[in-house]
Parts: sequence; structure tokens; C-alpha cells
Amino acid sequence: MSQFTIRADRVERRISRLAEIGRISDTGVCRLALSPEDRQAAEVVKGWMEEAGLTARIDAFGNLIGRLEGRDPDAPALMMGSHIDTQPYAGRFDGIIGVIGAIEAVQTLREQGIVPQMPLEVAAFCDEEGCRFNKGLFGVRGLLGRLEEGELERTDKNGVTRRQALLEFGGDPDRFGADQYPPGRVGAYLELHIEQGPVLEAMDRAVGLVTGISGPIWWTVDLFGFAGHAGSVPMHMRKDALVGAAQIIAGLRELASREPGAPTVGTVGSLRVFPDSRNIIPEHVQFTVDLRDIDLERRNRLEAELREMVARTAAAHGLRYEIREDTVSDPRYCADHLKDRIREAAGEMGIPLPELMSGPFHDALAMSYSCDYGMIFVRCKDGVSHNPKEYSSMEDIALGTELLYRTALKLCTAGQSVQAGVD
Amino acid sequence: MSQFTIRADRVERRISRLAEIGRISDTGVCRLALSPEDRQAAEVVKGWMEEAGLTARIDAFGNLIGRLEGRDPDAPALMMGSHIDTQPYAGRFDGIIGVIGAIEAVQTLREQGIVPQMPLEVAAFCDEEGCRFNKGLFGVRGLLGRLEEGELERTDKNGVTRRQALLEFGGDPDRFGADQYPPGRVGAYLELHIEQGPVLEAMDRAVGLVTGISGPIWWTVDLFGFAGHAGSVPMHMRKDALVGAAQIIAGLRELASREPGAPTVGTVGSLRVFPDSRNIIPEHVQFTVDLRDIDLERRNRLEAELREMVARTAAAHGLRYEIREDTVSDPRYCADHLKDRIREAAGEMGIPLPELMSGPFHDALAMSYSCDYGMIFVRCKDGVSHNPKEYSSMEDIALGTELLYRTALKLCTAGQSVQAGVD
Repeated sequence: MSQFTIRADRVERRISRLAEIGRISDTGVCRLALSPEDRQAAEVVKGWMEEAGLTARIDAFGNLIGRLEGRDPDAPALMMGSHIDTQPYAGRFDGIIGVIGAIEAVQTLREQGIVPQMPLEVAAFCDEEGCRFNKGLFGVRGLLGRLEEGELERTDKNGVTRRQALLEFGGDPDRFGADQYPPGRVGAYLELHIEQGPVLEAMDRAVGLVTGISGPIWWTVDLFGFAGHAGSVPMHMRKDALVGAAQIIAGLRELASREPGAPTVGTVGSLRVFPDSRNIIPEHVQFTVDLRDIDLERRNRLEAELREMVARTAAAHGLRYEIREDTVSDPRYCADHLKDRIREAAGEMGIPLPELMSGPFHDALAMSYSCDYGMIFVRCKDGVSHNPKEYSSMEDIALGTELLYRTALKLCTAGQSVQAGVD
Repeated sequence: MSQFTIRADRVERRISRLAEIGRISDTGVCRLALSPEDRQAAEVVKGWMEEAGLTARIDAFGNLIGRLEGRDPDAPALMMGSHIDTQPYAGRFDGIIGVIGAIEAVQTLREQGIVPQMPLEVAAFCDEEGCRFNKGLFGVRGLLGRLEEGELERTDKNGVTRRQALLEFGGDPDRFGADQYPPGRVGAYLELHIEQGPVLEAMDRAVGLVTGISGPIWWTVDLFGFAGHAGSVPMHMRKDALVGAAQIIAGLRELASREPGAPTVGTVGSLRVFPDSRNIIPEHVQFTVDLRDIDLERRNRLEAELREMVARTAAAHGLRYEIREDTVSDPRYCADHLKDRIREAAGEMGIPLPELMSGPFHDALAMSYSCDYGMIFVRCKDGVSHNPKEYSSMEDIALGTELLYRTALKLCTAGQSVQAGVD
């Protein structure tokens, strides 16, 4: 493996510094979006952006964005980034390494004396997590003109509206129009992120190439049967809603596991039983379904099968059922030309680069509606995230950052554009 | 079918009268054990016992017991009865028809000029339901010397102890010893009860012969897996506690349904998921198991199979598991000679008499540890009980009461004893 060009010690120091802001316990962080801690962190990161040569500001949406002009100031920018807000009981890496890695990539380019063809931008997007106001990807959607009705009126658990929190943070709803990016402003977006899953660890690989972000189907399913005494209703006369639910849960497991090696995942994470008494046959069961696949055609086929299975199982047990579609979002694929550049960079570094999809959302998901995107995953221990136990080694993070840097280097020096088919 | 000897109009009038005490809505009753309503009902029923020729009193345990001497005052008594306390949101029949039916049987015997060989006793046992102090069959267990440590100190939701409630009702813990029945005092016990299940209705039969009361096995099962993001942990790497639980629930259903026609029942009535979030793989699931069978050997075999299935399923999904045995009670069988008498009586009446087991407990369960017992079930609509919708027709109740009367007639005139092998 070649030596690093990026400075791993600087990356490590910055990760440690950021972990102090909103620190809980030894390794935990609580830095809710638009909180004073989030504001303090943005100020610190802004300093690093400036140190890297970027001109940085907090925009109307609360995004912290730094820009370095290239030879062609009108060319679509190459943007890199992620977020620095966290879940309430979080770790030090989720989002953070994407922002610090992006700054490191730009700073290294500058230190190497490279003048990019196109502008470089680094973003720490506002409120990716969405836990405070129960709707995430706020800043990036704002930047791209994809906010929805009423988002500023959403309140946190203390009754504070997003508008109020945003104003205190330094954002400004009155400037939303002015700060929105026009189409074509960004040509490509790269994001470095911890995997938040166990795949790379199981493969014994430090970094991976993301093929896409799978859009989930989210359902709420209700099964309605008939209550009765657990001791007195014979099995063949029962309308047991929980038995129906159990068969569907077991069936979903089989459905999602059917194709070995496929990234399909199916989960029932929440389930409730009514009346929930040990000697009463369950009359009503409500449960959620989360079904994801990077292959939209396969996902749609499995969705249809699942729907059919719910109907068949309900009929077999004399149950009435309702399926409510809470979310149906499509998979978003990484751009081939960006994947190629990342692969080339990994090849030069002499490191293996397994490919995997991303189950969780990232800022890149929103960016994908406006430009090409590529993502690099860094291995994380036991797949744990959104928890103080979240952990990625500095070796792995440095490797991912070097890969990000080398990819950016290729993109900003190879041709006139970071967009597909031009370089 | 022969004409009735019992007086159906009297039975109906008494059921209606009792339904007025603690009445809720049109058809509902709330007459909690040892409440003023329960006391008022006991007074009314005591009057009917006296009208039937019985000498009645409320004993130290709160039982209302009437006695009619026979030719041999020292012979083991033939006892009939049930209870008149109810669940908080109950109907008019559960327990009631067993008490009113027993009084009717004795009253009819007297009206027919029959002098029984042995003493006849009619019991309205105190607190069969157990909902007020969360432990039932109090009176009958007291009578038989089967109370447990601390029962008098149990409190209801208002903090009233059973001791206090019992004293206000007219019971007396200081007289427990004196009022306890010595072994042999009762030779046989008959109970008429609504089925509280849908079997007779499905068979289109008014009454049925109970073969026994199946003792339930009650377990609490905990499955422990590993949480993870529903989008990022591949299916084959999951330790999903809910998938394990689902397979066990579906497996229990198959296990309990395996032998067609067998009265085995298996139920998971309560289940909880932790952390119960739609995009987190369930880490911990807790659920109950209720397994019943009148055939102890088969129940034990199924229990062993279920235990093995839990272990196998847990292993297959990498789950840790715990099984807590909350209750393991054995089935208690009705005496052959009493079943024979009931069958003969039904034969004389020209009515079909299907046989079925009882899933729920009854006072007869406690009596079974002290004497032979027999039970007659009366069809109830949709199997609904413990609900104002509970309903049995007067035609069916009259038929059950006539069957009880004719059985008692056989037992009290046929020989010197109501015990097995003597008549």
C-alpha cells in the first residue's frame, strides 16, 4: 500500500476535538441539530474550512458551506461533505468523518499545490439526522429547493419550532430563495461515511464502494381477528391475529433471504398486540414492515409477493387486514463514472474495494436528485451506530479519507467537468 | 324429548333477578367478590336456598352454603354449585347458572317428594373470579384447606385487603379452622356452567359433558438478539429476536393443531418488542405461552417439543433465550361414574351429549382435589364470556338444569354413596 498523502494525525485531532462538543460519557456525543452545541461545532469546523483555504459561511438553511474557486469559476462544482449533527445518544463518527474527510481532501490538494479545474465545495449539512424535529435531511433539501409545506412549524419536544431554532442558529427563512442552489451549480457530490452496518467488518475490509442507497418501503399492517379464551377456543376455530402476524414475519424473513448474496433486507421492527393478555387470543395486531433493495425491479416484485402473502395469510386465519403505505422511496444509484474514479484510486492505493449498498439514508440521497453522487464507506465495529459504542479505527478512517482525496484529485484535474461522459 | 321436571320459569326469573344486582348497561353485570353487590346477591340467593328447603349460611370464607339432610346424615354429601361473583365487565350467566341450577335441582327433588340417601349441599363459592385480589377460587380452596400464605393480605386496587373485605362481607378468618371441611365430607361435586367457548355452538348442541379441566402451562419466554439498522444489516448476519419469536408462535400453532380433533390449545396472547422501532432490528422480545391439554401425557410431550423448538429456533438465529415457568398445573379429570350418570340422564331425556374438555378453571378444579366431580356445559353464543355480550338461551339453560337435576336424582337415590364403585 502506498503512503498516505492526507495527514491522518490532523484528521484524528479534528475528530477528537469535535467529540468534545456535546460529549456524553467517554465516547458518546449528543449534538442535536440547531442546538448551541451544534452551533459551537459549526464554528470550529468553519475555522478548519478556512484553514484549508475555503471561504466558509452558514447559509439560510443552517448549512455550513465552504468554497474554493477553481480555474473555471462557472463550472459545476465538485462538492464533498456530510453532517455534524448527531442523534441524542450517538458516537463520534456518523457524519463527522465525511465533513472532516472532505476538508482534509481540499486541504491536502492545496498543500500539494493543486489548483482544481472546477470550484470545490465542502458542506456540513444542517440536520441530517432529523431526530429533533422528526424529519431529516433538512439542510440539503433546503439547498436544493426540496423542502415541504410546514417544515418550519415542526416543533421539538420542548415546543421550539424549527423556525425559531434556525433563527437562533444563524439561519434565515427570509433568505431561503436567495441561498437555494440553481440546477447545475453542483456537478458531482462525494460523501465519506461510516457503514453503520456489519458488512465490511465481516469481509475484513477497511473501506467499500457504495453502489447506491436503497429506498425503503415502509408499511403499517393491521390484522384483525377475534378474541377468545385461550383455554376454550379450539385451534381450528381461532382467528388469532398474532399467529397471522407471526407467519407473515417468518415469511418476510424467507422472502428477503431467498436470493443468496442479494442485498435485500426485510424487517418487522415494531409490533403491538391487543388486548395483550396471556389467556386471551389476540384480536388485533399492528406491525411495521421495512423492505429495501437496491434493485428496484426485485424490490417491487418482493413487495407484490409480500402483499399477496399478507392477503393469503389473513384469509387462511379468517383475519381482516389493512396495509398503510407510510413511505415508498426508490433506490438511488451512485454514478458509474464516479464509481470508476473511486475504483481507480483504490487500485493505485493497492487496496481491495468491495461493493455494497447503503441501507440508511445520507445527505447524498437528497443530492442524488440534483447531481451525480459517489459514496465511500468505512468499516465500523459490529455495525453499531447511533450509539456511544459506534467505532471506526483511525487506520480505516485515514484510508477512507485518502481514497476520498485521491478520487477528488482525479475529478478536479482530469478534465473540464465532474459530470458523466465529459471527463 | 321428555318434558322438563324442573321449572324453567323459576330458573329464568332468578337469573333475571340476580342480573339486577350490580347491573351495568342492558345485559352487563359488575359484582366483584366481597363487594356490597356480592353481599346483596348472597342474601337473595340464600333466600332461594331456604325456599328450596336448604339450611343456608355464609361461612368463614365467604361461601354461601346450603344443606339438606338425607337419610344418612353421616354419608359423604352430594354437593352442587358454582359462584355468583363476576368479572368487572361481565354477563349474567358465568357461575350464576351453576348456583341457580343447583338450587333448582334440590327444590325440584323436594317438590317431587324425594328424600335423598345422603346430604345435599349447594354452594355459591366466594371469589371464584379472582379479579379483585388477583387470585381466584378463594372460597372453595378455603373450604378445603388449600389457601396459601399471605392471601388475606392481598389488596385490591383501592388498597383494601382481602381480610378487611372478608370481614365486612360476614366472613371471619378466626373461624377458618372451624369451617374447613374434613376429608370425606363431600363425596361428589357437580357443576353446571356455561361453556365460555364456541365448541357446542359449532356442533349445534345445547349441552355437553365435560371430560376434565385442562391445566395450563404458563411460560414467559425471553429471546435476546442484537439490534441493528434495518437498512444495513444483511439478512444472514441478523440476530432478530422477533423473527425467532414469530417462528415459535407459528410453530406452536402447528404443534397444537397437529392431532385433528384433539383438544390441545396453544396460545401466545402477550408479546412485547424492544426497542420497538420500525427501522431497528428487534433486540429483545418477550412473550407468553399458554399450553393446555386434557391428556397430560400428550401435553407433556408437546411441552418438551416446544421447549426443544425454542432452543432450536434460538440457536438458528443466534439468540439467547430464557423460559420462565409461571404456572404448571395438571389436568383434572371428571369421574367416570359421574360421567356415566350424566350420560344416562341425557339418554333418558333423548338429547345428544357431546363431550368436551374445559379450558378455563372452575370451582370444580379445586373440588377435584377433595372428591370426584362432574360438569355439564351449556352452549354460549360465539364463545363470548367475561363480557356483557355473554349469552346462553333460556332453552339451553333449562336443558342443562334438567340434566343436572336428573343426574342428582340418580346419585341421591341409587345407592348408599355418591362415590365411585359403590353405587
